Amino acid sequence: MALLVQKYGGSSVGNLDRIHHVAGKIIQAKQQGHDVVVVVSAMYGETDRLIQLAHALTHQPDPREFDMLISTGEQVSMSLLAMALNAKQCPARSFTGPQLGIHTDSTHTKARILEVKTDIIQRELNHGRVVIVAGFQGRNEHGDITTLGRGGSDTTAVAIAAAIKAHECQIYTDVDGVYTTDPHLLPKARLLPQISFEEMLEMASLGAKVLQMRSVELASKHSMPIRVLSTFSEGQGTLVTFEDKIMDKRLVSGIAFSREEAIVSLSGIPRQIGIEGCILGKISQAHIEIDMIAQNTTAQNTIDFTFTVQRREYPKALKIVEELGKELGAISVKTNAKIAKLSLVGIGMRSHTGVATTMFQALGDAKIPIQMITTSEIKISVVVDETHLEQAVKAVHEAFELDKAHKPQLQIAIE
Amino acid sequence: MALLVQKYGGSSVGNLDRIHHVAGKIIQAKQQGHDVVVVVSAMYGETDRLIQLAHALTHQPDPREFDMLISTGEQVSMSLLAMALNAKQCPARSFTGPQLGIHTDSTHTKARILEVKTDIIQRELNHGRVVIVAGFQGRNEHGDITTLGRGGSDTTAVAIAAAIKAHECQIYTDVDGVYTTDPHLLPKARLLPQISFEEMLEMASLGAKVLQMRSVELASKHSMPIRVLSTFSEGQGTLVTFEDKIMDKRLVSGIAFSREEAIVSLSGIPRQIGIEGCILGKISQAHIEIDMIAQNTTAQNTIDFTFTVQRREYPKALKIVEELGKELGAISVKTNAKIAKLSLVGIGMRSHTGVATTMFQALGDAKIPIQMITTSEIKISVVVDETHLEQAVKAVHEAFELDKAHKPQLQIAIE
Repeated sequence: MALLVQKYGGSSVGNLDRIHHVAGKIIQAKQQGHDVVVVVSAMYGETDRLIQLAHALTHQPDPREFDMLISTGEQVSMSLLAMALNAKQCPARSFTGPQLGIHTDSTHTKARILEVKTDIIQRELNHGRVVIVAGFQGRNEHGDITTLGRGGSDTTAVAIAAAIKAHECQIYTDVDGVYTTDPHLLPKARLLPQISFEEMLEMASLGAKVLQMRSVELASKHSMPIRVLSTFSEGQGTLVTFEDKIMDKRLVSGIAFSREEAIVSLSGIPRQIGIEGCILGKISQAHIEIDMIAQNTTAQNTIDFTFTVQRREYPKALKIVEELGKELGAISVKTNAKIAKLSLVGIGMRSHTGVATTMFQALGDAKIPIQMITTSEIKISVVVDETHLEQAVKAVHEAFELDKAHKPQLQIAIE
Repeated sequence: MALLVQKYGGSSVGNLDRIHHVAGKIIQAKQQGHDVVVVVSAMYGETDRLIQLAHALTHQPDPREFDMLISTGEQVSMSLLAMALNAKQCPARSFTGPQLGIHTDSTHTKARILEVKTDIIQRELNHGRVVIVAGFQGRNEHGDITTLGRGGSDTTAVAIAAAIKAHECQIYTDVDGVYTTDPHLLPKARLLPQISFEEMLEMASLGAKVLQMRSVELASKHSMPIRVLSTFSEGQGTLVTFEDKIMDKRLVSGIAFSREEAIVSLSGIPRQIGIEGCILGKISQAHIEIDMIAQNTTAQNTIDFTFTVQRREYPKALKIVEELGKELGAISVKTNAKIAKLSLVGIGMRSHTGVATTMFQALGDAKIPIQMITTSEIKISVVVDETHLEQAVKAVHEAFELDKAHKPQLQIAIE
């Protein structure tokens, strides 16, 4: 018997049949003796419908009113779920974020949770009721409705779980959990039973869109384990927790990738102190976000400077860089929008030095040219031609035997 | 310069173009120097969509959750209207019923307003902002969202107008105001510039669905004049106010009618004390509402008992009455579902005795058989065959010269 927070996303409550299905899952948890607090997103497509309505009405909707509008999406799904539960003789009550006492700052459309009141939840749980809470929303100090931004329901769930000291925060979604890499690309990808918060953050930021990053940060800060599971199939999913709680320790956990980027290279720039800040300054003035950066000094005492940007920003970035190249006297400007980024993530890298070697040997054996490399404490990222992505993922996945369950000898190697 | 409450119904905010149009009307009132509080209904069709969703999910939706669900309709329209105003540089803020402090009892789906807090309205008006309030909703003592039942936005508007002591409560709708009878049936029908609360109540209860009855009662109780006007055309509409404030005093104000009823007659029942209670008791046990009742004692010391019910209840009523007829020894049971009720309404009737005579002479001259008559202080209702309705309305309308503007000689006759 435990206190659980369960979060169901938009596709999980996407139609009335699915709402009945979710009600069944909640009842199952209640029958197992658990107390359940449920956080729901808007029904799939509803938030987009409301956003389109606002933008069809006016170019720049007032942010306070925009939040007032889009917060109705969760109010619809949560009341329908409460109706479904009550109809099945499982007492339930739904609450909006403001009603429950989810206090946020006043940054409309991107508010941050400051405090979660627990008195209503406690009262309802004491009455044996399931508590259903609208995700993605709260109220500011003036009593105005605020929303937390895309994916904010995950954050609501973690914040509530932390406030009521839940046993775990279960995020129900349309995938079984977190895989070693995307199973659509590599069918051999394996479901990870556990992953650390840090690895999950790297995976999330690299395009494995299972959990919202802010919710993982929050869970890590409050030591709240998150379990990612599927609404539509049985299984234990993936538990996101602290490194020292992970039983199945591995060198690397998974391979994330993204096709959303473009690469820009300036080669042979005469060396000059502060030149990097000058290049990056011009880019950020144009409100273009930079992801990876690599810089080398050549034997000729010139600089090669390479970075990646979001692919949709590529035409804008290209124009700036061509001007910059002339200005700085670069020998060449090379750009490529048809690239992909692949990142190997694993906490084992911290203490084990052979990871990079294994990775690059695997890519070399597969004859895949590497256009750029960056590293951080627990990940190695490479840029390859988009046409090589699938092959590269496969090669690295095999090299680390990610398709096979945990091997004890690797664990010994780490510790 | 005055303090106005304006209420816009579902068809007035039925799409984005109409919302822009309503914003224009509000700005016009502001430019004339008025302070404006606006009450809005849900966009046309939205409340029905939500109700259908709930009923598709479960047979008997939990009332608390049902209110949670359907209250989102007004939240959408009010935030869109506030966006439209802000986009036109007219500062506006929207508030849900609970946010504003509209306190109700706990009768979900049919709550009654207990109190309207005015501090937020005053604060916003002091800042020069238009205050937009969700109609139809409030909160009970537990903080749960409640709704007021169909047409409840009119009640919200009147309750707010009374609380803030507005100059008048303007109900914008898709008709120009209150007519002497339905202009669809009789094109000669004339717009009434003024009508008394009592007359309006009789008109409303008789099928002239311009205003919700409860809102007229509330306005009368709080001496709050209501003006009914069209969102889509200019004009002064109809002012609903106290009898002694009406300049254009007439014998009768209008003719309301309804095709929604059916008539049931039991003839020749042997006279017996308490028999009426026995008949009505059987009908109300079956949860059938009775509208008109007429009873006569014949020369043979038997009773003729006639009443009308909603037409949809007719088959149920028929079955009960046939059994009753046998039980009570009635000579005949006559029923007719194809009838219409016509009611002449006017405060002048109180003091002037010739009204009934004029009415029945007009119906007689037009050769219209009358199936039933009932009277109250300010109205005379008759039941005629449905095929005679149009002709009957025309005859009575002409007899009282309702198509012509006020005639002073009639006024003299009244006073």
